Amino acid sequence: MRNPLDPPINERCGPTQRVDTNHARRADTNQARTWIDGWPQLARSEIVDRTHALGRVLAETVAAPHDIPPFDQALIAGYAVRAAATVGAGSYTPLTQPLAHAVTRGQPMPDGADAVLPFEATTSGPTGQIEATGTVAEGDGMEPRGQSLRAHTPALSYGRPLSPEALGLLAQFGHQTVRVLCHPWVRLEDSANTPLLAPLIKRDGGIAAPAGTEPDLILIPGGAYAQTEFALELDGLALRPGGEAGLGRCQNVPVIRLPQEPLACLTAYELLAGRLLRRLGGRPCALPHPTCQVPLTRKISSAIGWVEVVRVVLAGNGAEPLGSTEGGGLVTACRADGFVIIPPGREGFGSGEIVTVHLLHARDDDW
Amino acid sequence: MRNPLDPPINERCGPTQRVDTNHARRADTNQARTWIDGWPQLARSEIVDRTHALGRVLAETVAAPHDIPPFDQALIAGYAVRAAATVGAGSYTPLTQPLAHAVTRGQPMPDGADAVLPFEATTSGPTGQIEATGTVAEGDGMEPRGQSLRAHTPALSYGRPLSPEALGLLAQFGHQTVRVLCHPWVRLEDSANTPLLAPLIKRDGGIAAPAGTEPDLILIPGGAYAQTEFALELDGLALRPGGEAGLGRCQNVPVIRLPQEPLACLTAYELLAGRLLRRLGGRPCALPHPTCQVPLTRKISSAIGWVEVVRVVLAGNGAEPLGSTEGGGLVTACRADGFVIIPPGREGFGSGEIVTVHLLHARDDDW
Repeated sequence: MRNPLDPPINERCGPTQRVDTNHARRADTNQARTWIDGWPQLARSEIVDRTHALGRVLAETVAAPHDIPPFDQALIAGYAVRAAATVGAGSYTPLTQPLAHAVTRGQPMPDGADAVLPFEATTSGPTGQIEATGTVAEGDGMEPRGQSLRAHTPALSYGRPLSPEALGLLAQFGHQTVRVLCHPWVRLEDSANTPLLAPLIKRDGGIAAPAGTEPDLILIPGGAYAQTEFALELDGLALRPGGEAGLGRCQNVPVIRLPQEPLACLTAYELLAGRLLRRLGGRPCALPHPTCQVPLTRKISSAIGWVEVVRVVLAGNGAEPLGSTEGGGLVTACRADGFVIIPPGREGFGSGEIVTVHLLHARDDDW
Repeated sequence: MRNPLDPPINERCGPTQRVDTNHARRADTNQARTWIDGWPQLARSEIVDRTHALGRVLAETVAAPHDIPPFDQALIAGYAVRAAATVGAGSYTPLTQPLAHAVTRGQPMPDGADAVLPFEATTSGPTGQIEATGTVAEGDGMEPRGQSLRAHTPALSYGRPLSPEALGLLAQFGHQTVRVLCHPWVRLEDSANTPLLAPLIKRDGGIAAPAGTEPDLILIPGGAYAQTEFALELDGLALRPGGEAGLGRCQNVPVIRLPQEPLACLTAYELLAGRLLRRLGGRPCALPHPTCQVPLTRKISSAIGWVEVVRVVLAGNGAEPLGSTEGGGLVTACRADGFVIIPPGREGFGSGEIVTVHLLHARDDDW
């Protein structure tokens, strides 16, 4: 029997490319991923101040305005010398250095110097002159002009997320502003899952679509009073929990219907909606969680053809599965240290097998 | 000889516990870590709206206000039945179900029902009545009241960073606001490295100390005109790059002096200042980068007793070291995919040896 509680399929919005009303014939998750990865990245970009650009995605390629370093520079602190003048120097045969300018890292090398002699390899002569007690070869302890980067060579590529390092380099290049991709506009229809979904959308770089604009992505959680007319293209997935999800479109805007049960909603968001949102915004598509590889403390079973997402806690050096795939709601999600994804080709993982855990928080281990 | 370019040591601020002016007698990084880990977490907390709490650190323990689930609930969609009434049912022996309420996941179980029969295991009888074509055991497809969590049991512990899952659970518990640790107040003295350091501080949860307040942490980059009088306790570390760093205090506030050269400044921030900042704010101390384990494409040498931080690019399935430890500045930092930390007890890593790479960006690999 067809599930009488399934949401009605709405076909008012243009022709439907594929509607599968039978949940027993679910789309596999590879079809869903192909569908997601078929949507293009946003073309909209904006100029923002560098001091507000952390984590934004670069929408231009930034080249070095000049050679880096712009001059021959010291790489260590010491005395800039002519390497030839140190030949034969040693603790018992200190050699006076005709050229000996104290330099610190990053300072320009004085004219004529071609190496930096560390302070430890120097001593003071009887009249205060600097003497070498060791030798250096030409180029030691210094970095020639342009060695890191030649002028006008690309240093930061289009599409790169802006890290602190990249923002430091932009400042070094004299950029006060930077062109970045816009945040994708998301229309999230209101439901009991809004408090869960809003921070996920924020994490993945989405913002609420401004009133009166066409969004870049529409999310319709189960239980929301659907205000959007859309055509479902994939209805029901071989995903557990979260298989009630559906993928479709409203005119040219992608629409993802999410399950009502919170753990299923979360799982479908993570594997489907989050991926599409990151893709639209030009971020890496993969799940944003850090991962670790650990053995399972006991086996997990799964149905062939299904992707199953199992919450685990880290115990000792292993990952311990938490109860059933579908029970426990957000309590289970919050109790977990992470989750394991069982791919469709597997019937599960054996006890002791090494699995990839997607971690929900940073680990507190050390360098 | 003492390096004449070393910054003068300022002892105007109370007695100095340990001043080592000789950079050849550097403190090892374990001393630095012990010093860092001796500072206590902030005690200040504040109440914020749940919708602004993503990533903040919980400063209370939140208990379930009632049993979770609050009633016996369906875990799957189907017909809520009495399990006993399905005994003997099969495709050729369908059994009429006296009690058969359609339920979807998360709905309360009706009185008298003790299992959920999936729709696939049902059929319509001649008069439209629901018949079972399969059996269920008591408890199948449902979750008893309180199974996830009993009322008044802690669900989210003090000190937990607030993930989307945790915010969803707070909403489910009816919390509109939540008590979180304050952002640590950082006084960053201005220097050419401010554009690099400001986003690092932001990433680690610090904010600029409000005018007129005592900060929780003072950072003095090399080249800054030091406005702070402080006593150095560890001056110079066996860390490369970044060994010019110093650790000290101004009255009861920790002070970290950072090197002037950008790559050294970045490295000392990551291994020292970032750790202390995360610690003060109650976050996990460890480096916040995701990691991966890959083989080195060629060997890296290092001096015993020193921690060396080597930038690498990921190439093929391996990590390729980028030039020398200290050259290249932020260009090298931006070219790298990550960095490898060589611990003090090692003389380096061999070619082909598996190392932990701290990644500077999310990987684009798939589930």
